[in-house]
Amino acid sequence: MIVTVVGTGLLGASVGLGLSRAGHRVLLRDVSPTAAELARDLGAGELLQDTPGAEPDVVVVAAPPDVAGPLIVSALREHPGATVTDVASIKSGILAYVREGTDGPELDRYIGSHPMAGRERSGAIAARHDLFVGRPWVICSDEDTPPERLAQVVSLVRTLGADPVHLDPDIHDAAVARVSHTPQVMASLTAGLLADAPAEEIALAGQGLRDVTRIAASDPQLWAQILAGNAGEVRALLEEVREDLGRVIDALAGGRGSVGALAQAIAQGREGQARIPGKHGQAPANYSTVTVLIDDSPGNLGRLFTDVGEIGVNIEDVRMEHASGRPLGIVELFVVPVAEHELVAQLRERGWRIPETEWKEQP
Amino acid sequence: MIVTVVGTGLLGASVGLGLSRAGHRVLLRDVSPTAAELARDLGAGELLQDTPGAEPDVVVVAAPPDVAGPLIVSALREHPGATVTDVASIKSGILAYVREGTDGPELDRYIGSHPMAGRERSGAIAARHDLFVGRPWVICSDEDTPPERLAQVVSLVRTLGADPVHLDPDIHDAAVARVSHTPQVMASLTAGLLADAPAEEIALAGQGLRDVTRIAASDPQLWAQILAGNAGEVRALLEEVREDLGRVIDALAGGRGSVGALAQAIAQGREGQARIPGKHGQAPANYSTVTVLIDDSPGNLGRLFTDVGEIGVNIEDVRMEHASGRPLGIVELFVVPVAEHELVAQLRERGWRIPETEWKEQP
Repeated sequence: MIVTVVGTGLLGASVGLGLSRAGHRVLLRDVSPTAAELARDLGAGELLQDTPGAEPDVVVVAAPPDVAGPLIVSALREHPGATVTDVASIKSGILAYVREGTDGPELDRYIGSHPMAGRERSGAIAARHDLFVGRPWVICSDEDTPPERLAQVVSLVRTLGADPVHLDPDIHDAAVARVSHTPQVMASLTAGLLADAPAEEIALAGQGLRDVTRIAASDPQLWAQILAGNAGEVRALLEEVREDLGRVIDALAGGRGSVGALAQAIAQGREGQARIPGKHGQAPANYSTVTVLIDDSPGNLGRLFTDVGEIGVNIEDVRMEHASGRPLGIVELFVVPVAEHELVAQLRERGWRIPETEWKEQP
Repeated sequence: MIVTVVGTGLLGASVGLGLSRAGHRVLLRDVSPTAAELARDLGAGELLQDTPGAEPDVVVVAAPPDVAGPLIVSALREHPGATVTDVASIKSGILAYVREGTDGPELDRYIGSHPMAGRERSGAIAARHDLFVGRPWVICSDEDTPPERLAQVVSLVRTLGADPVHLDPDIHDAAVARVSHTPQVMASLTAGLLADAPAEEIALAGQGLRDVTRIAASDPQLWAQILAGNAGEVRALLEEVREDLGRVIDALAGGRGSVGALAQAIAQGREGQARIPGKHGQAPANYSTVTVLIDDSPGNLGRLFTDVGEIGVNIEDVRMEHASGRPLGIVELFVVPVAEHELVAQLRERGWRIPETEWKEQP
């Protein structure tokens, strides 16, 4: 299969890397020649301009939402035999644009799609061949879509390790407004409160704040376009948030029933959170944790796990954190309770620092 | 040192576990005998009622904020020689209560404190002896605090592996409003939008949403009290959020400059996020990732790391995720780029599933 990727940012370059590794031929194009060359150098494919006459079976438009529409229409015109898809995170507006700019047979060759994957970093430099593994990838076909073209897009999605999910564009846009766009705004607003805050306040930050604000590191220009492109859906949800927020603010002003109103807001969040599939942090509840402090230098983690393997204790899960402001890694090993004592004893014998020892040595 | 822990929930039981392991004698008390017995059975200490005549050097009040004040005053009365501290997440209101209920010498024996640690799960069953390792622990002493009593609290904090941070109660309350209480409200409001959402929308949830909403799983009753106890500070910040949110909503209504206003909101969040110390996700930028799919059954992770150790490649960092809806673990190994090829080749030789192979086998 020959696939042209138009736009070699995070998603486009990741598509190129994944398809190239799977043995497909990938042709790269970007409005910025430097960006396209970077993606080529990283292994995402060949430059389109170096491959005269090569005709793609599929074109993947991986451009920001505000330019995706025109690029899709151009691709349909330029490649009359190709199936054209895009990976933009909004689907209704782009479909309307394409419908307006094309005739029926052209339109039938367009199948919008959207991988539910991304990173808070952008550009080809952050691309990964396995970015889509295990992620839902929404495909917006309709009754006019020729089955063989749909099969091409499904095959491409599966080749990248993702799970195809078939949805109408409207339903897709409502869904991402709720599970992606609105959470992005909430994370950004929360992190925005830190921009001018005193350093001594920020020094108390813990893992909760880090998690809530991780995606606030995302690209402002790209996100402004995404939000503007799905403005109706996002605005409706943010209006809901504003009402809920108003109730919390009123409750904080005190008066009868105010603690109940606060509890109600937190309880509703708890209920919603419990509905998220595949969330972290369930399994370890039944395990004991062994916390090992390691010098934050290359190779130590590998040596630790080699020792754990030799000791012969099964590790059920693992978490790693870097201690704030100190050159220390905190590794949490989750093991069945009966194995904890043996693991701790043997790791200590091999010289690993497990906090309890330290504490006992202190006066 | 003999330490009485009043309140054997997550924090109290964790204090008990840590101090007991460090060789101190811990006496446990809780308004619920069942809760105290559970903490004892988990190894957090002895039941206070089983130790007649034992007089504590330090009392740690680890009760919800709305009852911490009275319990601190009682402890100061009951134990005229003891230093009394508490671990509640608000400090000014509790200090005011204690000041009102005590005389000068009594008040001097009270030193409020607050460990910046917690979990989204509650109760002694979620307690961990290493909950405080590497975390800031705020201590609110003042010029009247006797140095030897301050030293006791600092020693206790260090024994538990935490870093003492000295702050005024007012500054503490403003700080936690910003880095803990307001983020909790934002996470809860975001997750609250999922409570009644269609299942097909929630099915598209990804890691971003999981991170933003993780702490929304927290206990509603406890958080209602925390928010009510720090109402002034939290309300002021939520008013700021409401204004920022209003600007985003207005921008989503369109008009000239609206995309710029959206970008501005996201950019301010990015700026704030960058100020958080010790955040995850910086180190791996320069590393290659090798993604291994493992059956989500006990022992597989240990076997993987044993193999990695034998292959002799240094692992710089590790992440683990459970694929949504599938009995699969996704383990990301971060290695220096030059080691990637060798690691992949040798892991495959040992039978490990690394996505690329699978993709090539697909038609």
